[in-house]
Amino acid sequence: MDAASRPQGFADPGKATSARQPPRVSLEARLLRRLIVGLGEPPIEFMLDWTGERVAPKGVAPLGSVRIADRQTLLGLLRNPRLGFGDAYSDGHLEIEGDLVQLLGFVYRSSKPSGPGSSLGQRLGEWLNRPRRNTLHGSRENIHRHYDLGNDFYALWLDRTMSYTCAYFPTAEATLEQAQVAKMDHVCRKLRLRAGDSVVEAGCGWGSLALHMASRYGAKVRAFNISGEQIRYARQRAKDLGLDGRVEYIEDDYRNITGRYDVFVSVGMLEHVGRENYAQLGRVVRNALSAEGRGLIHSIGRNRPQPLHAWIERRIFPGAYAPSLGEMTQIFEPWDLSVIDVENIRLHYALTLRQWLARYESALEQVRARFDEFFVRMWRLYLAGSIAAFETGTMQLFQVLFTIQENNQLPLTREYMYPR
Amino acid sequence: MDAASRPQGFADPGKATSARQPPRVSLEARLLRRLIVGLGEPPIEFMLDWTGERVAPKGVAPLGSVRIADRQTLLGLLRNPRLGFGDAYSDGHLEIEGDLVQLLGFVYRSSKPSGPGSSLGQRLGEWLNRPRRNTLHGSRENIHRHYDLGNDFYALWLDRTMSYTCAYFPTAEATLEQAQVAKMDHVCRKLRLRAGDSVVEAGCGWGSLALHMASRYGAKVRAFNISGEQIRYARQRAKDLGLDGRVEYIEDDYRNITGRYDVFVSVGMLEHVGRENYAQLGRVVRNALSAEGRGLIHSIGRNRPQPLHAWIERRIFPGAYAPSLGEMTQIFEPWDLSVIDVENIRLHYALTLRQWLARYESALEQVRARFDEFFVRMWRLYLAGSIAAFETGTMQLFQVLFTIQENNQLPLTREYMYPR
Repeated sequence: MDAASRPQGFADPGKATSARQPPRVSLEARLLRRLIVGLGEPPIEFMLDWTGERVAPKGVAPLGSVRIADRQTLLGLLRNPRLGFGDAYSDGHLEIEGDLVQLLGFVYRSSKPSGPGSSLGQRLGEWLNRPRRNTLHGSRENIHRHYDLGNDFYALWLDRTMSYTCAYFPTAEATLEQAQVAKMDHVCRKLRLRAGDSVVEAGCGWGSLALHMASRYGAKVRAFNISGEQIRYARQRAKDLGLDGRVEYIEDDYRNITGRYDVFVSVGMLEHVGRENYAQLGRVVRNALSAEGRGLIHSIGRNRPQPLHAWIERRIFPGAYAPSLGEMTQIFEPWDLSVIDVENIRLHYALTLRQWLARYESALEQVRARFDEFFVRMWRLYLAGSIAAFETGTMQLFQVLFTIQENNQLPLTREYMYPR
Repeated sequence: MDAASRPQGFADPGKATSARQPPRVSLEARLLRRLIVGLGEPPIEFMLDWTGERVAPKGVAPLGSVRIADRQTLLGLLRNPRLGFGDAYSDGHLEIEGDLVQLLGFVYRSSKPSGPGSSLGQRLGEWLNRPRRNTLHGSRENIHRHYDLGNDFYALWLDRTMSYTCAYFPTAEATLEQAQVAKMDHVCRKLRLRAGDSVVEAGCGWGSLALHMASRYGAKVRAFNISGEQIRYARQRAKDLGLDGRVEYIEDDYRNITGRYDVFVSVGMLEHVGRENYAQLGRVVRNALSAEGRGLIHSIGRNRPQPLHAWIERRIFPGAYAPSLGEMTQIFEPWDLSVIDVENIRLHYALTLRQWLARYESALEQVRARFDEFFVRMWRLYLAGSIAAFETGTMQLFQVLFTIQENNQLPLTREYMYPR
């Protein structure tokens, strides 16, 4: 953001300050200065509305601005920067001047950890921010809170297939719906899905992948999900499409999967499984796969083990956790499952989320008819922050293809995934 | 192997026995029976030459035969089955009737572990079989013992490019040399190698990849290796090809790499790094990569953490270890390196090794001119056992492509790896 486009309404620039000028600086500004250092000095100017002061990192031209409404909000930020920022933005006591995604990108870029190990303080923080447990009951609660917000709400800004996971853009110009269909095809191709294959899906959302596998590939699918709203919607869709003979939607936990299948697939459920259950998930997968079975798990991930952003885990995805690839291998290694292929498509999630955010903003009127302004802003921050997280490499998206140990049936090369 | 093709010269079939017939069974046969159970009862018949007894798993038609020459050899097998088998085969006191690769495949298939956790006994065994340390000095010793056996020995059975790592077969019918060139191209494509790129290679073997990168892609390569024999050979090749201005071979440890590069590449060195040095390797990689740098590590791997086969580590690759994918992530995660792509090409290694074994058998006369019969048989067992290990999924081959955290320059899809 250049000087000309800097937002109006700020206090007298003459009062701009830095930690180098202690005499004229309020206690609040000094505390804020410490917070900025703790954040890694992002190129952002903070404005204290009630004192008129501006605080920015030393020697850096600010590229974005944050306005803080009152002392109470600042204290919330100082207590817990991540949670405080999200909550203050949601309730309107913190305002962003300029491009929200860009500003959040600055914050992510400046706060990268580096090198191995972690301090006691970090580990304590991680423990305090640990995700809620995903017991059979806990998972139902956690999933209900996010996915049962109302199918019509999600329909406002998702594409027609109602896919709520990272799409796959053959080119950056593809439409959202094209990219979601391409994602389903990409998954089916990786799995070499063939007519007559039996599939079990863990966490099926509104059911689009199961329908796609049945209608386009001739598979027979049993799809598990513990969101009642989603299952209801998916069943109706299958019926409307005349596919209810080939796709069965089961309102139950993945831990209760029984039977043997040619294919195990799970797109966007692992984030809700919880690290403590990875070996158990692996056992479910191992037991579900036939000798020549193939499996694919698609999940948000991280470059290193790290708790989810505290605000996201508290306000958006209770109980969620995005594993590192090393953590994901804990699903496979106890059961000698062979990892065949891993693809990191994080930039596709940035593209997906940009489309969701644009559609969400276009549908604001209808969103406001359903939810209050706190929710409206909270959801915007969630989508915008996620774009920034994927664009800066703070978050990853892993698709992991695997088989049981001795399955020699996959083609020698991956060219089969890229038909032309 | 059917009855008709069963090898001749066995003792009187009337003396065939099993653990169910204790009165007529020698102590040796009973001990061997316990060993067979411990091995998971592979469909193999064991013949004790000095008693004329045959021992086979109960209720299974044997598909292969092993003849044990004397009591001493049996005791060696009982003490340490893996080490004992390899040593007894090498010195000729253990003979295989029929197809060696097939028989070793039966052994691998029957001895699969399953489920998480490991007993104290297993862990003790792993500690006793732990690989030799890879300190700067230890690595030199370990590498010298394998790679400095003589360039002319390796030239007998490697292809013309002198590539001693897993090849990449575009089709199963490709020649070994075609597949080795295809492997180099596959690696270069994954890395999006372009003219003018600077490359650092860790563990360059006889130098073929570095030459390929310079001659076909216009890269400038610094290649590290601590095998004096290999470096000498590689330098001569570069000179002969007029590439010594673009490729520099450095006789030094990867830990002494300095400078920044567009590309870090390491094909078949990680097996010699040692788990204890993975985070250190990650630091070397992180420091060597420019902001838009790409890296690739190609290594033999496992489905779960497990020591290398004891005989292989003792007699063939001192100090070697094949990591699970989870263990490999310990290279990347401390430094926020982003894993972009993982490909498991273990079946390509089985194809590669089949070609090496066939060429080795064709060159036996020349091998015998250099080495004694113990070496000749040891090397055959190493190649045959490796085929069996990769075909049964006991061993994996991972190619891991990575970048520093925020490198948004790679193409959206992997189609660029598959030009047509």
